Amino acid sequence: MKLYELVGRDRINGYSPFVWRSRLALEHKGLDYELVSLRFTEIKEKLSFANSKTVPVLEDKAKAVSDSWEIACYLEDTYPDRPPLFTDRSSAKLFDLQVAMPLLAPLFRTIVSDIYDILDEENQQYFRQTREPRIGCTIEEARDNFEQPFKIFKDNLWPYSQYFKSADFIGGATPVYQDYVLYGMFLWARMTSPKRLLDDGDPLLSWIERMDRLFGGLGGRMKYIG
Amino acid sequence: MKLYELVGRDRINGYSPFVWRSRLALEHKGLDYELVSLRFTEIKEKLSFANSKTVPVLEDKAKAVSDSWEIACYLEDTYPDRPPLFTDRSSAKLFDLQVAMPLLAPLFRTIVSDIYDILDEENQQYFRQTREPRIGCTIEEARDNFEQPFKIFKDNLWPYSQYFKSADFIGGATPVYQDYVLYGMFLWARMTSPKRLLDDGDPLLSWIERMDRLFGGLGGRMKYIG
Repeated sequence: MKLYELVGRDRINGYSPFVWRSRLALEHKGLDYELVSLRFTEIKEKLSFANSKTVPVLEDKAKAVSDSWEIACYLEDTYPDRPPLFTDRSSAKLFDLQVAMPLLAPLFRTIVSDIYDILDEENQQYFRQTREPRIGCTIEEARDNFEQPFKIFKDNLWPYSQYFKSADFIGGATPVYQDYVLYGMFLWARMTSPKRLLDDGDPLLSWIERMDRLFGGLGGRMKYIG
Repeated sequence: MKLYELVGRDRINGYSPFVWRSRLALEHKGLDYELVSLRFTEIKEKLSFANSKTVPVLEDKAKAVSDSWEIACYLEDTYPDRPPLFTDRSSAKLFDLQVAMPLLAPLFRTIVSDIYDILDEENQQYFRQTREPRIGCTIEEARDNFEQPFKIFKDNLWPYSQYFKSADFIGGATPVYQDYVLYGMFLWARMTSPKRLLDDGDPLLSWIERMDRLFGGLGGRMKYIG
């Protein structure tokens, strides 16, 4: 199996929160995979075979699956004898949406200039052209005004901080796909931004430590790549 | 079984979003229950037997259970032969928190003056004394400035509107506890406030219609009580 991922200037460390979901799902299922690293400017050409303009793409035998949610469903349906990713697929789908706008969107605005900094020059140009219209300001303006989206992001973390006061994983005693969705977001931020997102004592920090130790400490080895 | 609920001036129609969760859970399990109606000012005395200052309280044989989450867990554990409320208890617990601060809190600020209007004079006084410190302004100021919390509430509904574009219930093909948590909030608002929360065409409206038809149309019969 091949998992196509997104890298920055270093060409080594994939940081996309959506690719992390798929990579952690593959680990959860105990499946072997090879990573194929792409920069933004290479995606269009290299993923045309899958008819996809975004990572992740999973190539399994003759099949190409794009979109992290589709990949999770594909893995669950194709490898039902492996540990289940979902206890409840509809809750997992809703969770995906509950993370998208309330958390990923303000976090993107918070760290967009940091992501810019880990890219090579050609990809910085591409990133600026495609992302500035989305955020409605320049990278430099976003750099100076990260406090407002950061506050929204932190406010929207409240349910999770509360939840982890008394639970080990969103799946209860063991992680499920929702854990990988939320953790993938924190890995993305850790790898691309020097900003510290959580305050000491936040129960989310203990959960992140537990997630860091999964799969031989895979996530725990991921550091800031800038 | 007795379920203690909260009523306004009319002494008939229980409107608490937390009581609705428990009532719908009882209906889901197909269990018989009797409703006991209380006004705010009667709660302290009438629920002292359960050592509770809030509704809902469920009395089952010699046992008294307070707090809607505890009641749901009690029903699931005590009546396992009845239809399950949870497919995944930890997701349901997290969902409770995801609704609390992002939705219930701004909706309360939006309709607090409308709730005041459906109470009798003695309870209006009690409500003002206890709720004004919580919202940090007077009932009258909240009445004039409901647009800002209303916008926050509507923005935070985004994941649900998206989700119901392609799903019947949060439980998938049939409702689960999370459906009752979200629906209880909409019943609360419908019964206490003349404000219209959703725009035409919002997929949440179709889901509410499906919820309205459950249990012989129980929720569908609930109208504005002011």
